[in-house]
Amino acid sequence: MRYKTEYLTMELPARRGFVNLTPEVERIVRESGVREGLVLVNPMHITASVFINDDEAGLHADFERWLERLAPQAPVDQYRHNDTGEDNADAHLKRQVMGREVVVAVTAGRLDLGRWERIFYGEFDGRRRKRVLVKVIGE
Amino acid sequence: MRYKTEYLTMELPARRGFVNLTPEVERIVRESGVREGLVLVNPMHITASVFINDDEAGLHADFERWLERLAPQAPVDQYRHNDTGEDNADAHLKRQVMGREVVVAVTAGRLDLGRWERIFYGEFDGRRRKRVLVKVIGE
Amino acid sequence: MRYKTEYLTMELPARRGFVNLTPEVERIVRESGVREGLVLVNPMHITASVFINDDEAGLHADFERWLERLAPQAPVDQYRHNDTGEDNADAHLKRQVMGREVVVAVTAGRLDLGRWERIFYGEFDGRRRKRVLVKVIGE
Repeated sequence: MRYKTEYLTMELPARRGFVNLTPEVERIVRESGVREGLVLVNPMHITASVFINDDEAGLHADFERWLERLAPQAPVDQYRHNDTGEDNADAHLKRQVMGREVVVAVTAGRLDLGRWERIFYGEFDGRRRKRVLVKVIGE
Repeated sequence: MRYKTEYLTMELPARRGFVNLTPEVERIVRESGVREGLVLVNPMHITASVFINDDEAGLHADFERWLERLAPQAPVDQYRHNDTGEDNADAHLKRQVMGREVVVAVTAGRLDLGRWERIFYGEFDGRRRKRVLVKVIGE
Repeated sequence: MRYKTEYLTMELPARRGFVNLTPEVERIVRESGVREGLVLVNPMHITASVFINDDEAGLHADFERWLERLAPQAPVDQYRHNDTGEDNADAHLKRQVMGREVVVAVTAGRLDLGRWERIFYGEFDGRRRKRVLVKVIGE
């Protein structure tokens, strides 16, 4: 069995935003030497997501508005989590809608993605340093 | 290590619908010869889901109505993604609620599912040809 | 390749609740002897979730209230699934928001989790015996 683990650093300037991780994950798969297997990609934080969807700015604006409707950030005192002094309870909820992780097939040494599938980091409580774990296993 | 990759074709006659993939995934696991491992099942498209839930028509009607309430298809001009000429922004959102993929354990050569767990393809923008990837790895 | 499969028993006294599974999953990873690989954790039931988030009681209260707003349990006759005699259609919906499973990296023989990441069982239709599957694969 072959494997490779790498940690990517994220630091977004705004509270929320999306970053296309696909080129980095492709590089890690290539460097791993794995030809057939799986790659796991997840944030190591509980106010962020890794998900697969379209690389289209209009859709990202729709995600932003929709998530804010499903789990609004303000007023912060609507959440018991924020009684601890935090203001990010909404980020913990948004991350559940978007999911924590993706698992992607590696076939013939490449990410086995459909034509429009792109791997994104979704930040819901940014302006701080965070990490994303990428783990490839296979042969 | 053993592995097997197969691509299933989906083409639903309606915009939305659910298809039970469990027998096909069971067949692929059997043919892979993997006795202990994992199987990944995901659509290769960003307006569809693979998820595990009940094979019960009433529940599927509930999913349809509930997803339409959380992320309505119309009016299409409520979504910036649809400014590109698409009318499927809602499908990208619904797929996030239902999730992209499932990873299922393979134990003693079989899908290690609970009594009521069934693997479903969820289509949210049908009437076109799509693919589902099934990848088994293990030994 | 090494692997280990274990089934944990859950029986919550209330309809809904959260249980921190992290110590049990850590133990299983340790006992598996896997140093590098993946661990899958999922309920074998379709009215429960396994997810990763914060071990903070205020946040769990927020999840409870938020999920009840997105997919209310009552009135039970709003769901076609409940025409079968069930009263748990909402639990099938809540589980989709929170997700079915988590896949976690195993690195140097340990769960490769971020500082605040904890693995939870989320019950949405309790007061009965259920099982959680834990499967470690790697080397």
